[in-house]
Amino acid sequence: MSGDKFMKPQMDAAALQAFLTSDFPQVGADFSVDRVDADGVTVRLNVTDAHLRPGGTVSGPTMFALADVAMYLAILSRLGPVALAVTTNCSIDFMRKPAANTDMICKARLLKLGRVLAVGDAMIFSDGQDAPVARASLTYSIPPKMMG
Amino acid sequence: MSGDKFMKPQMDAAALQAFLTSDFPQVGADFSVDRVDADGVTVRLNVTDAHLRPGGTVSGPTMFALADVAMYLAILSRLGPVALAVTTNCSIDFMRKPAANTDMICKARLLKLGRVLAVGDAMIFSDGQDAPVARASLTYSIPPKMMG
Amino acid sequence: MSGDKFMKPQMDAAALQAFLTSDFPQVGADFSVDRVDADGVTVRLNVTDAHLRPGGTVSGPTMFALADVAMYLAILSRLGPVALAVTTNCSIDFMRKPAANTDMICKARLLKLGRVLAVGDAMIFSDGQDAPVARASLTYSIPPKMMG
Amino acid sequence: MSGDKFMKPQMDAAALQAFLTSDFPQVGADFSVDRVDADGVTVRLNVTDAHLRPGGTVSGPTMFALADVAMYLAILSRLGPVALAVTTNCSIDFMRKPAANTDMICKARLLKLGRVLAVGDAMIFSDGQDAPVARASLTYSIPPKMMG
Repeated sequence: MSGDKFMKPQMDAAALQAFLTSDFPQVGADFSVDRVDADGVTVRLNVTDAHLRPGGTVSGPTMFALADVAMYLAILSRLGPVALAVTTNCSIDFMRKPAANTDMICKARLLKLGRVLAVGDAMIFSDGQDAPVARASLTYSIPPKMMG
Repeated sequence: MSGDKFMKPQMDAAALQAFLTSDFPQVGADFSVDRVDADGVTVRLNVTDAHLRPGGTVSGPTMFALADVAMYLAILSRLGPVALAVTTNCSIDFMRKPAANTDMICKARLLKLGRVLAVGDAMIFSDGQDAPVARASLTYSIPPKMMG
Repeated sequence: MSGDKFMKPQMDAAALQAFLTSDFPQVGADFSVDRVDADGVTVRLNVTDAHLRPGGTVSGPTMFALADVAMYLAILSRLGPVALAVTTNCSIDFMRKPAANTDMICKARLLKLGRVLAVGDAMIFSDGQDAPVARASLTYSIPPKMMG
Repeated sequence: MSGDKFMKPQMDAAALQAFLTSDFPQVGADFSVDRVDADGVTVRLNVTDAHLRPGGTVSGPTMFALADVAMYLAILSRLGPVALAVTTNCSIDFMRKPAANTDMICKARLLKLGRVLAVGDAMIFSDGQDAPVARASLTYSIPPKMMG
């Protein structure tokens, strides 16, 4: 999509998963890195009761967390394991009710990886379904040191 | 701010707190309804370890949840205890690092309460500080039956 | 992308262009409908001096207008020539400087076409370039009568 | 609201108006700077036929332009006449139909003025009415040299 030269991945799915487990022990087990590709990363929310609202559907804050983690990992996959990018904006649309008691899949796509800002969007699905449940765009501020 | 006639509160802080405790048992204890006024409501996040990132600061998803709960309660304070308004969009800006291990205060303000959509904004502060940590705007879809 | 049954186009590019010319005479000449497909529509901004900032780049409000027109036409392409959908939200990220004195291309994609709300996103490029200049997500309110 | 020390205005309404006229000759006459205060600035859209949709209401792109100009001037009022801040994001909610053939008033409020990012929100009214027509939040990237 982008043409920026530094968009080639430096970390694969296993390396991102290891980073998540070691640096975010509280939430690392909630998420699985399914895939890293030329557009960004795909992350799975391993649904448990803690993520659910009455009725068995995943809560809005949990979907926000999924989009945020996925885009953060997409940035790290290009910059390497430096845990400093900071979310500055997220605009999220909730479009459909998620399937009950079902994992969610988030495809995060990098659109810009600049010197001070990274921008991307994320599409969230209930596993096995075609129609997106939510859509988010996110911006991150990148501290000066991270870009080498 | 608004001029809409139906903006007068139907539920006070104690009634909203009771609703939160009974209908959202998983998260009800996290939030305290501090105030209901002509603009909207003020909700406190009672910070515990579960809300914190390494370093003791409240996580982004937790601030999203705080803004979402506060605006939802602002809508209910006008419409009465009908638990059906659905978040359709949230755009949130994270502007400053929260104070460590400190409660957060969210002032949610209703800007529109229409037949099918409600819109408002929310400002989030670390308790005792003047500079806002985050700012959110939120839209809710209101099912036909709710407006009586 | 979506799976909604009513996503099949009812109007082609020529029909949308004719609608734009007749119903929006002030701005119709600014835009060309390049394509209607299964995802949405592609609309071109025919750049003139009126759209430019000093330096020859297209202004932010003009890109906003391009995204808004394109998504509106994407909705009409599915619902037929009923000029009543109303923009309720737009979140737009400006990511790169546009190429000077160059047409812009907007690919608008429908993500939801519900009874009361339509949601989509749009990617804006300088004609002939791969890296997106801007990205927008838009929500429209659909009056009851429009859905037949 | 903010507490940042550099939030004190360096330019008054007349100085901002003179800057707008000289540096943005194409649109300068559309806007009047009504007021500069501790929160930000108030800018008026001098409505003409060019801003109107059929029915006499101000178009969405024109309201976007009003919010963008007002926040840009709010930043300049603090930083001085350096015409380089760049809009990176705008999320705008259109909440009510504007009054026909009526000037619009935009109150832009600075929420953060950091080293690399400025954030604020804007409320747009039809002149003489209490209920807001639109609400926007905006982020600007500030080039390194601007902060002295």
